[in-house]
Amino acid sequence: MSRWEPNARGRLEQAALDLYSERGFEQTTAAQIAERAGLTERTFFRHYADKREVLFAGAPLLEKLFVDTLAETGEKTAPIDAIASTLNAVAAVFLDRYEHARQRQAVIVASSELRERELIKLASLSAALATTLRGRGVDEPAASLAAEAGVAVFKVGFARWINGDGERPLAEFLREALSELKTVATGS
Amino acid sequence: MSRWEPNARGRLEQAALDLYSERGFEQTTAAQIAERAGLTERTFFRHYADKREVLFAGAPLLEKLFVDTLAETGEKTAPIDAIASTLNAVAAVFLDRYEHARQRQAVIVASSELRERELIKLASLSAALATTLRGRGVDEPAASLAAEAGVAVFKVGFARWINGDGERPLAEFLREALSELKTVATGS
Repeated sequence: MSRWEPNARGRLEQAALDLYSERGFEQTTAAQIAERAGLTERTFFRHYADKREVLFAGAPLLEKLFVDTLAETGEKTAPIDAIASTLNAVAAVFLDRYEHARQRQAVIVASSELRERELIKLASLSAALATTLRGRGVDEPAASLAAEAGVAVFKVGFARWINGDGERPLAEFLREALSELKTVATGS
Repeated sequence: MSRWEPNARGRLEQAALDLYSERGFEQTTAAQIAERAGLTERTFFRHYADKREVLFAGAPLLEKLFVDTLAETGEKTAPIDAIASTLNAVAAVFLDRYEHARQRQAVIVASSELRERELIKLASLSAALATTLRGRGVDEPAASLAAEAGVAVFKVGFARWINGDGERPLAEFLREALSELKTVATGS
């Protein structure tokens, strides 16, 4: 087998997701994932530190998209409106990804180790958004609270999208969740 | 050494906190904690599953306090006001605990393993608050969003309290953070 394998990462990710869905995350080994993808275990470890990271390979890119989009909103936009347009832009990435996202989320929910990793991802995202808002001149604690609110809206809206029938796009669920957060926060 | 040791848990917790502060969490063993507390390693493991759990022994009690207080607020109180009075009641537990809380938080911040455990604690708290709100007749996604907002306020307010000089009580920081969240959410 040659050292360079076409789309090795994509094949490993899909093989991992399929095996985790079929057997469970704990019961699957890196060797089995590589075999299912038609690759060697060595190739697996050239791309991923461990079998947990296969499912989170996209996390830094997602965080970068959040941060770059937030950084590009007008300086005079209120933090929550900047968060709103950021969520809207990020949602576009998930168009046509409903089945994949649903399968991935089911695997994560079923494993405490993966749920922990998901929490780390979201905490990292929140910290990055707060840093970006401070860079736009937003003071503390407003920056941290707006970042936490944005991540809460993403988390809750995403879960509702996943648990729906996939007919409506993620962006709508995020808009609804943000609107509901505003209603909740004002106590009405 | 007799099987029953007076205040074994309190002594183990303080010894663990002191050693983690002095040497770091990763560099400390359960045997060293037991020795510092004047107890055996066996006694340590009779009380705690591992050295990480020593710092989180109070987490279920804190969660229970949150949930019980929230459950007791009037049914007609708006979710965010119920969260506000819950935060106020919980803050009372931390009166005269500033130095302890500060030492504990410094240890947690310094270790990725402990930061992860803290995230799990807060996620569990958020889920428990959402369940309690649903039990009070609050619909989704309002219940989850109010719970997430409450935990965000607790997290941000707590961090600001810890990073202050300890003169003002936690309750004040939580009130400020909640008020700031309302301002942020309404976009003003």
